Amino acid sequence: MPLHPFDEATALETAGEHTWQGRTSPAYGNMVGPFGGITAAQALSAVLRHPQRQGEPVALTVNFAAPLEDGPFEAIARPARTNRSTQHWQLELRQQGQAVLTGTAFTALRRDTWGADEHTMPSAPRAAEIPLPTARKRVEWVNRYEMRFIDGGFPEHWDGRDTGSSRTRLWVRDAPARPLDHASLTALSDVFFPRVWRRRATLVPIGTVSMTVYFHADAAQLAEVADGYLLGQAQAQVFRAGYFDQSAQLWTEGGTLLATTHQVVYYKE
Amino acid sequence: MPLHPFDEATALETAGEHTWQGRTSPAYGNMVGPFGGITAAQALSAVLRHPQRQGEPVALTVNFAAPLEDGPFEAIARPARTNRSTQHWQLELRQQGQAVLTGTAFTALRRDTWGADEHTMPSAPRAAEIPLPTARKRVEWVNRYEMRFIDGGFPEHWDGRDTGSSRTRLWVRDAPARPLDHASLTALSDVFFPRVWRRRATLVPIGTVSMTVYFHADAAQLAEVADGYLLGQAQAQVFRAGYFDQSAQLWTEGGTLLATTHQVVYYKE
Repeated sequence: MPLHPFDEATALETAGEHTWQGRTSPAYGNMVGPFGGITAAQALSAVLRHPQRQGEPVALTVNFAAPLEDGPFEAIARPARTNRSTQHWQLELRQQGQAVLTGTAFTALRRDTWGADEHTMPSAPRAAEIPLPTARKRVEWVNRYEMRFIDGGFPEHWDGRDTGSSRTRLWVRDAPARPLDHASLTALSDVFFPRVWRRRATLVPIGTVSMTVYFHADAAQLAEVADGYLLGQAQAQVFRAGYFDQSAQLWTEGGTLLATTHQVVYYKE
Repeated sequence: MPLHPFDEATALETAGEHTWQGRTSPAYGNMVGPFGGITAAQALSAVLRHPQRQGEPVALTVNFAAPLEDGPFEAIARPARTNRSTQHWQLELRQQGQAVLTGTAFTALRRDTWGADEHTMPSAPRAAEIPLPTARKRVEWVNRYEMRFIDGGFPEHWDGRDTGSSRTRLWVRDAPARPLDHASLTALSDVFFPRVWRRRATLVPIGTVSMTVYFHADAAQLAEVADGYLLGQAQAQVFRAGYFDQSAQLWTEGGTLLATTHQVVYYKE
């Protein structure tokens, strides 16, 4: 059975105690270089493969330091501090000896405690009731996701009016469908198209500079989701002087909040 | 004129090309070790002092890898990648040769663009109309901030009932008042007491493990705020298996969103 494109893209070969060799995946190509979500997943993948890893991902921050060139990269994941049940990681992706991504991750052994989902899932029609978009895909990576927009999809007309809201809600999963894990959830945290496009109905040049993912489920819980749809919601808080932020949530169909994620994005004009 | 306690706390002495020497400040003492906000500000302070710095802070992530012991620390801020108008930093605080904080920062030269504050400031009575809390301060750092709670203050009774909401709104500024800058805004991003205490009306043990700040204003805009009050709002999204997240916003009295900030926090029970 052929590997799923996501597993092919996030495969890494050992190249040292804290170093792996990977390569960019044409299946996840973006306008220039790869989809940022797959790059973030590749960085986390180094942590997930590390023989010294303790616990499961709770927090991940990646900074896109330079555009990746298509081809090989080195992934470095180094434990900076190992405590009794938690571990802090320093991350880097390098090409031609230069950092193209920097980051940190936090893994932990989690314990059962009191819990509550305070940000509850918005009500929405079921995924199957929402048609798939028919528009031509501008970039390859979009074909790797099944996206069914509940509201706030791509503007129908790029007429440059201020729409007053940057919010998008959609059902989303890998295409072809694939069981959920922390690496694929990382990539899914970046599927939301740039909020400035939605707010302004204008395709200005953009680029994510920093992205943080908080994971609220362990591997067993993610395995239970299997290849079910996730409800994703994303919205910006402020656009100013060339940078905006956006925050997003990803819930299971049953309403369990699996990940909350934030990013700051460069935009031109 | 004596230094403001904040400036005293964030003073660093050069100790190498990318290394500074600092020390924890009793004025910002917490239950155990220092207030996390001051530690984050100390880490950013190394970037702000770096002679190779380009631009101003846009994003900062710090991870609290181990409790700081009272006393000296080494602060390391290393430019990982310098582009034409942006720069990526790797951060570390060390004590006894071990990482106690890891992090990354992103600085940039910002340009005027279209902009909008999408997350608008909630309406609230003016700061002067809200009395200062009279309760005994449990920890020293709380005396370094003037906090006037609009709603969602400390529970009046720690009776362990689920209050159903973790939201807090307050007016806040340094005490004594001090002109705002990126370092003090970083510390202010961490003044919100742990959301799990508010939600559960229970003082469970907690500790922030990772905190991200997105800065939406440059030094000139912060200088204009001077020592005015900021309206802060914080709320959790999910509590599960020993960790919860919280997101917060800080607006000027005039309603400009200066910073959005997120953290993931360990809690027991």
